[in-house]
Amino acid sequence: MPTVADIEAARARIAGGVYLSPCVESIPLSQLTGAHVFCKLDYLQRTGSFKERGARNALLKLSPEQRRRGVIAASAGNHAQGVAYHGALLGIPVTVVMPRFAALIKVSNCRHLGATVVLDGADVVECRAIAEERAARDGLTFIHPFDNRDVIEGQGTIALEILAQTPRFDAIVVPVGGGGLIAGIGTVIKARAPDVEVIGVEPERAACLAAALAHGGPTTVSLAPTLADGLAVSRLGALPYDIVRRVVDRAITVDEASIALAILRLVELEKSVVEGAGAAALAAFLAGKLDDLRGRDVVLVLCGGNIDSTMLGRVIEVGLVADGRLCRFTVSISDRPGGLARLAEVIAAAGASIKEIIHDRAFSGPDLSAVRVVCVVETTGHEHVAALHAALGAAGVNVVA
Amino acid sequence: MPTVADIEAARARIAGGVYLSPCVESIPLSQLTGAHVFCKLDYLQRTGSFKERGARNALLKLSPEQRRRGVIAASAGNHAQGVAYHGALLGIPVTVVMPRFAALIKVSNCRHLGATVVLDGADVVECRAIAEERAARDGLTFIHPFDNRDVIEGQGTIALEILAQTPRFDAIVVPVGGGGLIAGIGTVIKARAPDVEVIGVEPERAACLAAALAHGGPTTVSLAPTLADGLAVSRLGALPYDIVRRVVDRAITVDEASIALAILRLVELEKSVVEGAGAAALAAFLAGKLDDLRGRDVVLVLCGGNIDSTMLGRVIEVGLVADGRLCRFTVSISDRPGGLARLAEVIAAAGASIKEIIHDRAFSGPDLSAVRVVCVVETTGHEHVAALHAALGAAGVNVVA
Repeated sequence: MPTVADIEAARARIAGGVYLSPCVESIPLSQLTGAHVFCKLDYLQRTGSFKERGARNALLKLSPEQRRRGVIAASAGNHAQGVAYHGALLGIPVTVVMPRFAALIKVSNCRHLGATVVLDGADVVECRAIAEERAARDGLTFIHPFDNRDVIEGQGTIALEILAQTPRFDAIVVPVGGGGLIAGIGTVIKARAPDVEVIGVEPERAACLAAALAHGGPTTVSLAPTLADGLAVSRLGALPYDIVRRVVDRAITVDEASIALAILRLVELEKSVVEGAGAAALAAFLAGKLDDLRGRDVVLVLCGGNIDSTMLGRVIEVGLVADGRLCRFTVSISDRPGGLARLAEVIAAAGASIKEIIHDRAFSGPDLSAVRVVCVVETTGHEHVAALHAALGAAGVNVVA
Repeated sequence: MPTVADIEAARARIAGGVYLSPCVESIPLSQLTGAHVFCKLDYLQRTGSFKERGARNALLKLSPEQRRRGVIAASAGNHAQGVAYHGALLGIPVTVVMPRFAALIKVSNCRHLGATVVLDGADVVECRAIAEERAARDGLTFIHPFDNRDVIEGQGTIALEILAQTPRFDAIVVPVGGGGLIAGIGTVIKARAPDVEVIGVEPERAACLAAALAHGGPTTVSLAPTLADGLAVSRLGALPYDIVRRVVDRAITVDEASIALAILRLVELEKSVVEGAGAAALAAFLAGKLDDLRGRDVVLVLCGGNIDSTMLGRVIEVGLVADGRLCRFTVSISDRPGGLARLAEVIAAAGASIKEIIHDRAFSGPDLSAVRVVCVVETTGHEHVAALHAALGAAGVNVVA
């Protein structure tokens, strides 16, 4: 089990190769949460996630013979990119096994970074078995994404940086997938600042930490699709579990809506593009699960930023709806000329901006003098939506849905 | 005219109050542009833009009497927030004149920061006149957003930081609105690193720097709406012009499509949320106007991040279309049962994901056995779009648009 001295050594080992990301006070997030919030911006790492730390440390601990033969990893995303990038920097051959249906962009990223990509297996668990098999066959060193002592040491270096960058804090909130990051962070925090609460956050739909703690050991949970795909791990690592059960004070699960809203808030307030995993710590606040930290100093670990733009666009739209900044309603208006003009006038006078209008004749019901119109409009918030509905009512517009 | 010594003094004055934003090497942007790119992340300032630098410096240079009476500023955005925020920190009363149609979010931000907001004037030019009038009437100090020596000194501090943070570079690319930022930066660069090329970038639709240089002095240009609303200034400042004509080596204009694409690329590759102004420097590369900097070390100033989420969502959608990751086409299919099912099957087999289908019976032309279907689908890039069209053709689907 790694000690804080091992993690100090890892820090010295990887320094220079891993970006010293800032840990910044956030006034807008403090206003939003009621806590005094500091954010560790590790999504600014060159490949967009903290995974580089563990990857580089594991690579640097290889023997000359292991370096020469090369390494193999299994991952659909950030771990693969971290190993590929640092392997290339260090001149170590890297093979990555990725699921057959991995996002093309991630596959091409890994190839671009110089890795040999093997597309095989239906999911990451299958990829891992394939990678271990190939490692044995070809004499490669397999680098597990979290159940690996060297990787955990590397991930722990983020906590040493945070302690050096942030004067004092009461709690640190850490996203949890397989447990490597929180095992490393918890080891450092409990040795250096034992009064700081270490809080793990995972999606409800992939709650392997909660299951392991309840069960008294790692146990396999069923996964449902989650926005925090980087945390979609069905079973906590064995080595992380042995550490986590001693160093983690609290485990929290978050729902998908809170994760989506957290991504949007980080875009709006922190100018940060984070993936679901990177937003999980803030999501725990937005879900109302950390209300007891109001007024306390809290560090949020923003661990990764590799979100697909298509997904980000969707999250922004869903978030705008949740904020009352995009709203949809259906009205029944006269089918005679001028009906739509009058509707548009009422909407404009209420200060809302029409984004989409669907004039639906066929499904407007038996009254042939009326027609249904579905309107999507931009508003400034829930109060504006209410004012718009009041204005429609006052103008005699029949809102049917 | 401020000297580099004045800017050094400003730096000492505002240190501690303004965030020392990182200046980071960007491997993905280097791959994209062919230059060796460093980004100064000043959009990470507490109010989301570099404007805090000049605002704080101007506030700190007030006499005790001026501080007591307070200041007034005119701005629709970042300058207002910078003055409001630092006024509150320093206990100086702040009044901000904002256009009557300013975005509600910016108005509420300024109020939240403790400023008195006056909503008056149709645009920033009118607001400025109103603010100067009120300044004279109420004994307030007017802080001009760029035509002000103290403000220029403050903006120049960013260049001192960049020189300390970045080993060496050949060029620095700076967004230009009224010229305050580039005047400050140019003063420092030409004194400390005279071989570095200072390049100004402004939107084609608000090209007051190009006009001033061509005309031999500030001249008023007509404005068209631009994504880089922070750079929508119709006339370069008089004081900035006197500096800029000596320190700026090149002025470049960028089109709206390049600005939109630059915002998207910064989201995807740099995990950075920037507004149009903040993306202008990268836009100059994407527009093909800095091809001569391939292989050189270049600093891009990412000066602000206050983009509205609605706008960001739109930029992402437009960018996805430009990248071939979202595509729309219209096909004519059989109106008998099974027509749409077969179409959907062909699209699915080609690996594209249907986002929207509009089945248009009424406007499908005279052939009543056929119906037009508008499809919006997610693809992985232009090659995939081409493959999808080939698959549609091979399956005998009649693509009409």
